[in-house]
Amino acid sequence: MNARSYGASATISVDAAEAILGAATKLFGDRGFHGASVRQLADESGVSLSNIYNYFPSKTDILLALLREANSNLRRQTGEAIATAGPDVTDRLRSGVQAFVRYYVENREISIVATSEFRYLNGVARSEIVAARDLTQRVFTTLIEEGVAGRRFRTPHPHEATLAMLTMCSSVNVWYRDTGPLDADDIATRYAHLAVALLEGV
Amino acid sequence: MNARSYGASATISVDAAEAILGAATKLFGDRGFHGASVRQLADESGVSLSNIYNYFPSKTDILLALLREANSNLRRQTGEAIATAGPDVTDRLRSGVQAFVRYYVENREISIVATSEFRYLNGVARSEIVAARDLTQRVFTTLIEEGVAGRRFRTPHPHEATLAMLTMCSSVNVWYRDTGPLDADDIATRYAHLAVALLEGV
Repeated sequence: MNARSYGASATISVDAAEAILGAATKLFGDRGFHGASVRQLADESGVSLSNIYNYFPSKTDILLALLREANSNLRRQTGEAIATAGPDVTDRLRSGVQAFVRYYVENREISIVATSEFRYLNGVARSEIVAARDLTQRVFTTLIEEGVAGRRFRTPHPHEATLAMLTMCSSVNVWYRDTGPLDADDIATRYAHLAVALLEGV
Repeated sequence: MNARSYGASATISVDAAEAILGAATKLFGDRGFHGASVRQLADESGVSLSNIYNYFPSKTDILLALLREANSNLRRQTGEAIATAGPDVTDRLRSGVQAFVRYYVENREISIVATSEFRYLNGVARSEIVAARDLTQRVFTTLIEEGVAGRRFRTPHPHEATLAMLTMCSSVNVWYRDTGPLDADDIATRYAHLAVALLEGV
């Protein structure tokens, strides 16, 4: 997305790009990537069909922009939480898991699209998103390796434990409803506890 | 699916129904429910368009039949594994988790469709599949409640632990490849270990 390069009309351009991405989140969520047409995206966003193509040459570019934004926000929020959690490896893991879970709870719609529609990306676009996801995973892998080396996490299966931890946390968006008895912070705190248990933290 | 009621042509009918469901697994996986047309299902399955409607009045009925079969197989395999695992609650949990993980590893394509395309079911069809999934979840909820009551599982958050356990296990289909160093049994055994750790089993 380089809408800001449109110069004098920069503010309007950013709004239009955001309107398109907002419409895509809704329509890809409701109908799937192949089920939603660019015409429907135009109707939903209020941006004309021809103008959509000024921002995004193809529907795939819209999906890529969505997933790029989702992964970037997840990585930033998680990274900041870990960086400000102090020196203890278990504290850093808890803090990272809490931020990760909060992201999925607070961004249900886009994170469900990111999970279910990723399979429609191919080639360079796919590689970019795989690399972005790997960056977030790598942060947790490194933390868990540190905890295992220091005998703070005793799991004999750190690789599978890392994948299990990330997938159980990212799946909260499937069942969590903000009308339930627990708010995002409660869920995040409980999942941090579950993550430490999973890793056999001491 | 009541293809068997077609009488004399029963064998052929069952084959056709299975061909349609096989094509749907592939096409719903590749293009999504809304992205795959009944015409494409006819081409892929080798069953004529008009004949497809003899078996399934609508594309939704095909999706429902797929999800019904997937949930039924998952529940049966899991239930049998638990029933034959002896009296110990941890042994039964391990056995159930192993069967559950093996199902997702060995049925990657259909289980990914079951997860990602479920959102396109509405009304009675949706209620039926929710009820079927709840039955499998209930088996694990009951086991975990028994283990918590008997102080074999010390997790302070059994409800979230149950959801976390089932979602981490069902997500193996996202990353598992049978070209990797571990086979389905290895993964299932490791996940059973992780599940007991998650529940703080003693």
